Amino acid sequence: MLKTSNEPRRRGRPLKSSGDYRETKEILRRAGVAALTAKGFSATGIDEMLKAAGVPKGSFYNFFPSKEAFGADLITHYAQYFANKLDRFFLDESLSPLARLQAFFLNAEQGMERFDFRRGCLVGNLGQEMGALPEAFRVQLADVLRDWQARTARCLEAAKAAGEIRQDVDCAQFAAFFWIGWEGAVLRAKLEQSPEPLRIFAELFVRGLKA
Amino acid sequence: MLKTSNEPRRRGRPLKSSGDYRETKEILRRAGVAALTAKGFSATGIDEMLKAAGVPKGSFYNFFPSKEAFGADLITHYAQYFANKLDRFFLDESLSPLARLQAFFLNAEQGMERFDFRRGCLVGNLGQEMGALPEAFRVQLADVLRDWQARTARCLEAAKAAGEIRQDVDCAQFAAFFWIGWEGAVLRAKLEQSPEPLRIFAELFVRGLKA
Repeated sequence: MLKTSNEPRRRGRPLKSSGDYRETKEILRRAGVAALTAKGFSATGIDEMLKAAGVPKGSFYNFFPSKEAFGADLITHYAQYFANKLDRFFLDESLSPLARLQAFFLNAEQGMERFDFRRGCLVGNLGQEMGALPEAFRVQLADVLRDWQARTARCLEAAKAAGEIRQDVDCAQFAAFFWIGWEGAVLRAKLEQSPEPLRIFAELFVRGLKA
Repeated sequence: MLKTSNEPRRRGRPLKSSGDYRETKEILRRAGVAALTAKGFSATGIDEMLKAAGVPKGSFYNFFPSKEAFGADLITHYAQYFANKLDRFFLDESLSPLARLQAFFLNAEQGMERFDFRRGCLVGNLGQEMGALPEAFRVQLADVLRDWQARTARCLEAAKAAGEIRQDVDCAQFAAFFWIGWEGAVLRAKLEQSPEPLRIFAELFVRGLKA
């Protein structure tokens, strides 16, 4: 745990150290991601989440002025965590570009299996709920998906350069196609509690790149 | 409005006629579909919905014993409404099978546009929320998607018979692929408030059938 004196000043009863401060914030973020990937934003009650995480309510408001601010923070952090994950796979020089894509599919499947297919994608969940969410989330979520798409398109470009896929594939368009459909596959895997939808989507997506 | 004496006996203050009874039930269903396609189940408050629909709360409980029973009824009715829509397109002998598919895509786009891309698919919305929903919804929603898939697979078979798509297309698998991805496309169109995701998905899906 990093100790730092650069944390913003907080109200309320002082925590024991800035280490505790960071730790509590991390606990809140983890509980938030768990709730939002499983149930979404609307169905998540802050009280219930804090109870499960063992964090007092007053402490929550030291970190986040509102549920909306908490949600925005979670989107930012989840987006960054996931972008790093994509880079870890898509920039892995030890594999061919298409094999990197396949490794990512397998990792996604294992990730969902680890939580018994009860947790999906935070961005997909919130996207689906958009009708009930603060309007500010819309731009944030759309930007996140565009960022993931751009990373995916670069991996497809590499696959094209390596001669692994058709030379006339429009990589940006296929990357958009991928993220449009993949969020649907994650949704369906949650619904069916099975990896089958991820596998079907991945298989036919890759076939489309090669055919 | 059909008048009938076959309605089940109801509790509470009698409505003026069985016509009123049916009408109120229809108003409730419409308000429910509007809320569930826009916001999902968790974010929909029965009180708020009844207020918007101008139906007293006591009246709601004459029709539905609980929010869960209401949700189950809405899934059943939406599934049937949508299956009829699919048949209208996919069994339209005046068009080639592939043109029927294209006509369905266009209709879906126009349907979302009519509500400013604020309403998506009731089944997709509820699927995404599964972590917060009654477990009984899971089987119901998965069955609905399998039914839509089967209707789509039959249209693809017809396209194959007509020589419009590759002869080695596994129609059942592509129909599964379609519904996995299409729910993602509807989600994304809602998020972006744009028909673009529907168009990208439809275009590359059809290309995959032909390539």
